[in-house]
Amino acid sequence: MLLLIPGPVTTRPEVRRAMSQDIAPWDNDFRAVLVRLRERILRVAGGRPDEHAALPLQGCGHFVTEAALRTFLPPGGRILIPATGAYADRMVRLARESGRVPVPLPLGPTETTDPQAVARALAEDPTLSHVGVVYSETGSGVIHDAVAIGAVVRTAGRRMIVDSVSAFGALPLDLSAMPEVDAAVFTTNKCLEALPGAGFAVARIDRLQACGGNAGSWSFDLSDIYAHALRAGPGSFRFTPPAQILAALDVALDYYEAETRPRRLERYTANMRTLYAGIQRLGLTPYLPEEQQGPVIMNVHVPADPAWTLQGFVDALKRRNVLISNFHNTPVPTFRVGCIGAITPAEMAGAVEAMHQALQEIGVTRRKAA
Amino acid sequence: MLLLIPGPVTTRPEVRRAMSQDIAPWDNDFRAVLVRLRERILRVAGGRPDEHAALPLQGCGHFVTEAALRTFLPPGGRILIPATGAYADRMVRLARESGRVPVPLPLGPTETTDPQAVARALAEDPTLSHVGVVYSETGSGVIHDAVAIGAVVRTAGRRMIVDSVSAFGALPLDLSAMPEVDAAVFTTNKCLEALPGAGFAVARIDRLQACGGNAGSWSFDLSDIYAHALRAGPGSFRFTPPAQILAALDVALDYYEAETRPRRLERYTANMRTLYAGIQRLGLTPYLPEEQQGPVIMNVHVPADPAWTLQGFVDALKRRNVLISNFHNTPVPTFRVGCIGAITPAEMAGAVEAMHQALQEIGVTRRKAA
Repeated sequence: MLLLIPGPVTTRPEVRRAMSQDIAPWDNDFRAVLVRLRERILRVAGGRPDEHAALPLQGCGHFVTEAALRTFLPPGGRILIPATGAYADRMVRLARESGRVPVPLPLGPTETTDPQAVARALAEDPTLSHVGVVYSETGSGVIHDAVAIGAVVRTAGRRMIVDSVSAFGALPLDLSAMPEVDAAVFTTNKCLEALPGAGFAVARIDRLQACGGNAGSWSFDLSDIYAHALRAGPGSFRFTPPAQILAALDVALDYYEAETRPRRLERYTANMRTLYAGIQRLGLTPYLPEEQQGPVIMNVHVPADPAWTLQGFVDALKRRNVLISNFHNTPVPTFRVGCIGAITPAEMAGAVEAMHQALQEIGVTRRKAA
Repeated sequence: MLLLIPGPVTTRPEVRRAMSQDIAPWDNDFRAVLVRLRERILRVAGGRPDEHAALPLQGCGHFVTEAALRTFLPPGGRILIPATGAYADRMVRLARESGRVPVPLPLGPTETTDPQAVARALAEDPTLSHVGVVYSETGSGVIHDAVAIGAVVRTAGRRMIVDSVSAFGALPLDLSAMPEVDAAVFTTNKCLEALPGAGFAVARIDRLQACGGNAGSWSFDLSDIYAHALRAGPGSFRFTPPAQILAALDVALDYYEAETRPRRLERYTANMRTLYAGIQRLGLTPYLPEEQQGPVIMNVHVPADPAWTLQGFVDALKRRNVLISNFHNTPVPTFRVGCIGAITPAEMAGAVEAMHQALQEIGVTRRKAA
């Protein structure tokens, strides 16, 4: 079964098999695994060991995003969030419900964030201490230029939090050149091609030390997670970790390092191009123009044919061993297909053929956008 | 390797193997798994489908405990917490850092909570809306009488939150007879004999509906998790779940239901008695008198011999395929041994023999408490 949902992604059997063991999380053998994981993650982020720390957190992307917002913004702190789509909306809600003040920067649902619009918003409102950026917006599929946005944030003397959940490990990230970034957050189950259950923040040590007491939550206090690592050692996970998930990540990073980040991005881009061209060949309409389409996830307008139902299409695809989401995250009805995970362009071509057969099976002939 | 750390516990290979698959969490096949899991968990808790809901949460025991405190107490809300040991201390800190007011009820480190002391504290302070009880205190190994404490809480017209992390699935729990309980919280990796990465709260529906807006955290809002289940269906997990961990739990519950809760408790009790008698035979001193010793975890005073080091003992035991913790959670130096997990009294007898050999190897002859 090819998972194109997109994330949790298709993983290699070697990665999944690493979970089939009992693990004592504070045993010295596993401490060594966690120390190594943190060093490897720091390298993926382009962090500097003297400036950055890779902090693990149990749970999902929402949790580590909330942890970053709570840790680096005080209660009542104000953060500008370009309204890039569903995941920016989630950052807005996470900030608001934790007593911070999110200020959305309006944006069309298929637009990229204009760094100059960020600069203007920051100039107009000096109370905005932070900008929250979704690097790869899983809602739309659009990639936002975190480096260019970071540059205007830096010039304006503000701080940035980067949601890199669906970007980390594929899109370039060099935190050593982005001193304006308090933290980049991500999870194990997207472009790192491991399993869901843990997140990480790669954060600036000076900011972690300055922000103790902000969080209003012991669980989500990244400053305390850093302090714990100083006190108990970098191999000690604060609270019971999802150890099997981390063991799988360690194997997944072997494959990541062998492939290298640029080649992984090339593979995902080739997956996306194969899909984009295939979708057009099938007579369907991509949600984004090709120059806006990122390499992580592609949305497709649902066809106008009355025979179309999303669940019917999903089920017909599943009978052909291709699994896509049975919901959409765009303002208009779409279906979405992930381009990430341990899959190749050849497998994506097979998925396109499966879509062709599935559309025939459910009797969809009018394929232009509804 | 026998994990006696205690928790994550030793699991069955069939349970671990269930993790070795890619899973699409919102696919209809997995929705059915989650629906079934929630029904099964509700039965383990003695919950009534019309009164209680089993709510899953990504992460660890601290997370679901914080979620319960945030959801059922408003900011500034006051909760009496019998100071039973390390895990009560953790509940105190979780409450305090989330802006609630924990009021510890002093207790000796090896005492059981006196329900009348709880009754007096509640009578003296009408501002205490809640009592937080650690059912099985993993710090000391003492079991606290949640039912008797619940009765005085009910009489006083207050509410209760039960940390049943290391109790759930072994010690009796019948929420249908405990209307004073807002929620009992637990994780997958203790007496249910599955893997770490998820927690559950079994909570009253009327209270979930009354407490919307309390949490001050979208991630930790159990009322929102309940609302999500109403809106998206009980098979929809809010945010990306640790799907492999849940798949393993589903298999673990097959074994749980086949064994039954009373027989699992009998097995753990037999494990503990084997360990307790064995420890005494080795000339070591149990931390608790036998009548205070619960069936989940046993602490042992470290021997007075200058050759003793905890890490040396742990390493010598590990060479004999028995893994215990390399830290302690008691006010005085101890080592701790778990009695839970997929292990038998015969295996525990083997662990005692391994301890005998390990003590000899590291040259510990004076075995009375230091």
